[in-house]
Amino acid sequence: MAEQKATNVTWQDGEVSRDNRYRLMRQRGATIWFTGLSGSGKSTIAVALETALYDQSKMSYRLDGDNVRLGINKNLGFSEQDRKENIRRIGEIAKLFGDAGTIALSSFISPYKADRDEVRRLHAAANLPFVEVFVDCPLAVAEERDPKGLYKKARAGEIKNFTGIDDPYEAPENPELHLQTDKMTLEEEVTIIIDYLTQNGIIGAQYLTRADDRLEFAATAH
Amino acid sequence: MAEQKATNVTWQDGEVSRDNRYRLMRQRGATIWFTGLSGSGKSTIAVALETALYDQSKMSYRLDGDNVRLGINKNLGFSEQDRKENIRRIGEIAKLFGDAGTIALSSFISPYKADRDEVRRLHAAANLPFVEVFVDCPLAVAEERDPKGLYKKARAGEIKNFTGIDDPYEAPENPELHLQTDKMTLEEEVTIIIDYLTQNGIIGAQYLTRADDRLEFAATAH
Repeated sequence: MAEQKATNVTWQDGEVSRDNRYRLMRQRGATIWFTGLSGSGKSTIAVALETALYDQSKMSYRLDGDNVRLGINKNLGFSEQDRKENIRRIGEIAKLFGDAGTIALSSFISPYKADRDEVRRLHAAANLPFVEVFVDCPLAVAEERDPKGLYKKARAGEIKNFTGIDDPYEAPENPELHLQTDKMTLEEEVTIIIDYLTQNGIIGAQYLTRADDRLEFAATAH
Repeated sequence: MAEQKATNVTWQDGEVSRDNRYRLMRQRGATIWFTGLSGSGKSTIAVALETALYDQSKMSYRLDGDNVRLGINKNLGFSEQDRKENIRRIGEIAKLFGDAGTIALSSFISPYKADRDEVRRLHAAANLPFVEVFVDCPLAVAEERDPKGLYKKARAGEIKNFTGIDDPYEAPENPELHLQTDKMTLEEEVTIIIDYLTQNGIIGAQYLTRADDRLEFAATAH
């Protein structure tokens, strides 16, 4: 490695811009914000979308209960204030990922319109795309699916303030995308999102060149 | 775009793994944690390192006062508890970026050993590289530089609990890298970090192939 020491490090003056990062990632950053009842299909769609994007060499990162609730938000409970702060922090993290050129996939119930609108506002102020996806599923269907057995516990009174049972879900009025998961296949749902990202220039042909990207960097970077 | 709808979306079963993301990014994720006095040179090195990595087509993302203190941590002040929580959250965010295959560059004073060790522990538990970089500069030199005029204010009593003046800085005992910024050039400092990342397989030749990466994906993904 020793020979590299002197020659390996050369850099231009100036900071790396968001546009530089987008060019390096061959995509734009964005946040896909899934919202819907427990059991509506948010995580299933996020996982399938992540894989579909990966298969196009596009970089996304899922924010979900496993890596957020057990990590940065582990000091938050389920009081109204903590639920608000939970969503705020997730929104801020998604924004950082978007700024870094990644497509953040957020899948949390996020039942309150005001909290989602605040995240939307954060993204608008940062000039980052915010794609609210209403994962719409009738309560009866979600409760029938009950993948984590939570509805059963909520009906038995073992969980309080459960969205859809004894806490409200405020449906989006103007989401970018509205998926009725009891009427669509998973492939249809993913296709709708991929098409949206393509049509809005977040992913797409202009970022698909790979072999000549060094030249492209040289012509435009810094 | 219409023709793409049916053919564009195909995916394998199963989730995208961290290794898949590393392959897509052509690098491993890691956290470079700069720690040192105000004015020691943390941000200057982070900016130069970011640019040097970019010039090698490597993806890093800087976490600093501008995008953290004014964003996700805007509800934190400077009490002992809030400073602890500030560092904890930054550590958790860096961990997410590392998991996503990005090299997170954290440049905060982070004066307390216990807080830095907690972030180190978080990374070890997540099997992610944590590179503590002690940005070492004598107080007199940092105070002479005083790029933000903060030492002057601290000496005048206008800022309380200022690290190095009336609050301690606990130097790392076993940092991965120790940079004496009053004795090295910026280029030397960046070279040391780049060499460390290369020698530890975070960036390097095994990730440099570009033209044939589709084949590589096909052979190993999922």
